[in-house]
Amino acid sequence: MKNKAVCIMSGGMDSAVCAFIAQSMGYDIIALHFDYQQRTMDKEKQCFNALCDDLQVAQKIIIDADFIAQIGGNSLTDTTLTIRENELNHQDIPNTYVPYRNGVFLSIAAAVAQRYQANAIFIGVVYEDSSGYPDCSPDFIEKINAAVNTGTGEDLTIHAPLVHLSKREIVQKALLLNVPLEHTWSCYQNQDKPCGVCDSCLLRAKGFALANTVDPIDL
Amino acid sequence: MKNKAVCIMSGGMDSAVCAFIAQSMGYDIIALHFDYQQRTMDKEKQCFNALCDDLQVAQKIIIDADFIAQIGGNSLTDTTLTIRENELNHQDIPNTYVPYRNGVFLSIAAAVAQRYQANAIFIGVVYEDSSGYPDCSPDFIEKINAAVNTGTGEDLTIHAPLVHLSKREIVQKALLLNVPLEHTWSCYQNQDKPCGVCDSCLLRAKGFALANTVDPIDL
Repeated sequence: MKNKAVCIMSGGMDSAVCAFIAQSMGYDIIALHFDYQQRTMDKEKQCFNALCDDLQVAQKIIIDADFIAQIGGNSLTDTTLTIRENELNHQDIPNTYVPYRNGVFLSIAAAVAQRYQANAIFIGVVYEDSSGYPDCSPDFIEKINAAVNTGTGEDLTIHAPLVHLSKREIVQKALLLNVPLEHTWSCYQNQDKPCGVCDSCLLRAKGFALANTVDPIDL
Repeated sequence: MKNKAVCIMSGGMDSAVCAFIAQSMGYDIIALHFDYQQRTMDKEKQCFNALCDDLQVAQKIIIDADFIAQIGGNSLTDTTLTIRENELNHQDIPNTYVPYRNGVFLSIAAAVAQRYQANAIFIGVVYEDSSGYPDCSPDFIEKINAAVNTGTGEDLTIHAPLVHLSKREIVQKALLLNVPLEHTWSCYQNQDKPCGVCDSCLLRAKGFALANTVDPIDL
């Protein structure tokens, strides 16, 4: 029996690389995407769909998670809040943190995995080289994996293959796996041209610079 | 500072008793309800709203969780599947099990708790005297509590005060706390009159019979 994996894919670079890693490991991919009224929702979905074509995924599921915007408390969905710019070295958790978003996403992914008898879930969280969100830590992934297995009665493995990678290493991995980076979007606030100053743009730019390569979406 | 608790309330008897327990412990209640296109959605929401009035909750949140029906694989949302009747003693997990539903609900509850600075979550899961769903076990509650705290960076307590109670004890607790049981609904399949033969009706009837009292919704 071939292995089947639910891959959470935002349309961003990290989750794209993560899905290509899953494919390189031999998994058939159930691509799982969440719409939650985030500022760049349309652009992210467009990238997600392009990546699904690139990967020739076995199945594609788009979840309406508007409740995330309803709960609020984050600047990705609440446009009255300001996304911080040029402040990558702050130690606090920025307002782009969406309360327990990855916990919610992984729980829904677990439901999908159980429904379609997948044996793995892939999520592209990055911890060290990131904004410091608590739901991106290796410890969290381990604990939610334990919860998911007890709560479903299944034996699922949650893979977070980027969790210990730097942004440089992620770009290098993308190049190695021929990930079509032109089909990825990382900016938190713009859908036409990356702002270049939000955390996500800064981290992406850092990765490309340290990998001595050019970001195709800047061309 | 007064304590604030997110109470997951379906409109059923168990979660109603659970919310009254939270109130008796001094918590201000954020009542959290999920619509997921289940067969008895309208009736459950009507009961939820009545219970919120009874409890005079501090806040009421209704989440559109249609994605649960989209994922499917259960007879509560998929009307092409048959809900089993008069078969309470089977050892298998029945098709009324909604894949990882409580994991999804608790994860969204955790997001709400973090957003509104609640320090507790209440869920009315029952384990021993139940249909044997894996996401109702005490072990699961413990593991997801650990995941939620690591993933949010908060110190939340997930309370499942009914988990070890029998249905008889739940009815007795309801009477003790003056829970308006006429504002609760347990039947899986009907919205007008309880079918009396699904697991949920059978378990409820067993509770009232053993507690030597009459179910007000049968009057």
